Amino acid sequence: MSLRKKFVVEPGTRIRLKDVDASFHGDYASAEHAKADLARNVARLAELQQKLFAEKKHALLVVLQGIDAAGKDGTCWHVMAAMNPLGTYVKSFKQPTEQELRHDFLWRVHPFAPGLGQVAVFNRSHYENVLVVRVHELTPKPVWSTYYDTINAFETTLANAGVTILKFFLYITPEEQLERFRQRLDDPARQWKISESDYTERACWNQYIDAYEDMLEKCSTAHAPWYVIPSNHKWFRNLAVSSIIEATLDDMKLQLPEPSVDIDEIRRKYHQAAKEGSPQ
Amino acid sequence: MSLRKKFVVEPGTRIRLKDVDASFHGDYASAEHAKADLARNVARLAELQQKLFAEKKHALLVVLQGIDAAGKDGTCWHVMAAMNPLGTYVKSFKQPTEQELRHDFLWRVHPFAPGLGQVAVFNRSHYENVLVVRVHELTPKPVWSTYYDTINAFETTLANAGVTILKFFLYITPEEQLERFRQRLDDPARQWKISESDYTERACWNQYIDAYEDMLEKCSTAHAPWYVIPSNHKWFRNLAVSSIIEATLDDMKLQLPEPSVDIDEIRRKYHQAAKEGSPQ
Repeated sequence: MSLRKKFVVEPGTRIRLKDVDASFHGDYASAEHAKADLARNVARLAELQQKLFAEKKHALLVVLQGIDAAGKDGTCWHVMAAMNPLGTYVKSFKQPTEQELRHDFLWRVHPFAPGLGQVAVFNRSHYENVLVVRVHELTPKPVWSTYYDTINAFETTLANAGVTILKFFLYITPEEQLERFRQRLDDPARQWKISESDYTERACWNQYIDAYEDMLEKCSTAHAPWYVIPSNHKWFRNLAVSSIIEATLDDMKLQLPEPSVDIDEIRRKYHQAAKEGSPQ
Repeated sequence: MSLRKKFVVEPGTRIRLKDVDASFHGDYASAEHAKADLARNVARLAELQQKLFAEKKHALLVVLQGIDAAGKDGTCWHVMAAMNPLGTYVKSFKQPTEQELRHDFLWRVHPFAPGLGQVAVFNRSHYENVLVVRVHELTPKPVWSTYYDTINAFETTLANAGVTILKFFLYITPEEQLERFRQRLDDPARQWKISESDYTERACWNQYIDAYEDMLEKCSTAHAPWYVIPSNHKWFRNLAVSSIIEATLDDMKLQLPEPSVDIDEIRRKYHQAAKEGSPQ
């Protein structure tokens, strides 16, 4: 089963999230059964990232979105940490600062676009401007409703410059979210993460779902597809995200660069002579 | 044996690198013997970084310097990759661009200083301005010779803002460097990294040693110490660097933040009610 095909939002189509099974876990009976495949994916990601870094002909941008506790941080840790930090970075987008609010909404995002040879992960992203901004009307509708086109144009600009864009919407149910909050309450090491707004935001669940559905419909494009990842099972989420990234990097047919020097000549010139005495 | 005490350059003292044993490996007979300790360090680093990230009262800046093939990239991969990319990043400083050269030499560096809660690794750094710049006279001596004070003032500024600074000079012998170049020649996956200048730079070895010795003497300070890491054995280098970072983070007495809410009240308010019906 190609997880890419299975989870991609075909451009122009509308996904009804209530029809999506957030607990889907494919052919795997349990985390235990998926372990070997996840390990394989993670090892492949490390290898492919090294090639992408060396070749410097492609860049990769991974966008992570999802409601609180959907697993954005966990995906960074369990999937993206497989890649060498030399050439890979995570940028988290928090509530914008006063200065950032005085600019267009892409102003703070653009500088973090990955260059050729780099992998960037956006933990939340410019999409917040059609999510939280929309749900809480932080910007009037006539303004935010233009953002979908703005975002598509921006992503086209990046894609034209060699950036492959993968966008993952980590989808969990409200019941699963509440269960994760409860686990945090019971874990002293994670109690500091809890805020009351985690709970009060749940009152807006349906508005968020509308906003996600619009985002997925309007902004899944051939060059920057959205994937809806069933994320009630963390292990399946990691498996699915890592599989899709791996398949995408694999398609790039990444190649290590050819040596820029004549290897035999270098060997003759510097290594045979060296036996007779250190160059120091 | 405290590796911190053993390898630190005491402020104001001059290290003669020719007296340093680059092949030192302490009480460990081999990589195999060090394996368990390295694994322990790496696991501790992951844990401590999580706390630093959560607490947001400290920042850590790790500076890596060393001649070509000394193991800067390897240290990023084997040590720093242990930390969650959420909150950790590597910044590599390459040859400055034309624009960067039109600014003071710290202009391109300062924006990458870590903020509270972050760990930054500089793979090469502002020290290149008293190393390659000095050896090749890219800037006249009366100018670069002022840079030591400039750097100390800069690092003081960072330290005063909560940044703990650790600087590692990865020290290998010229024989070890040549051997590593030879290994690259023999490894098709790494041949692309080879350039003739790798070899021609070796003619400047002694000038680099002078420049390193000056740097270590003038810029090892109480708040931003230099460590000279014997790096002929990659495994020992990883062990030493990870030990020193671990001990330093340990000294910070990092604490997870207290919950900002009343945990019992949240439990009562949102979790017991939830049993009666989903909040959706």
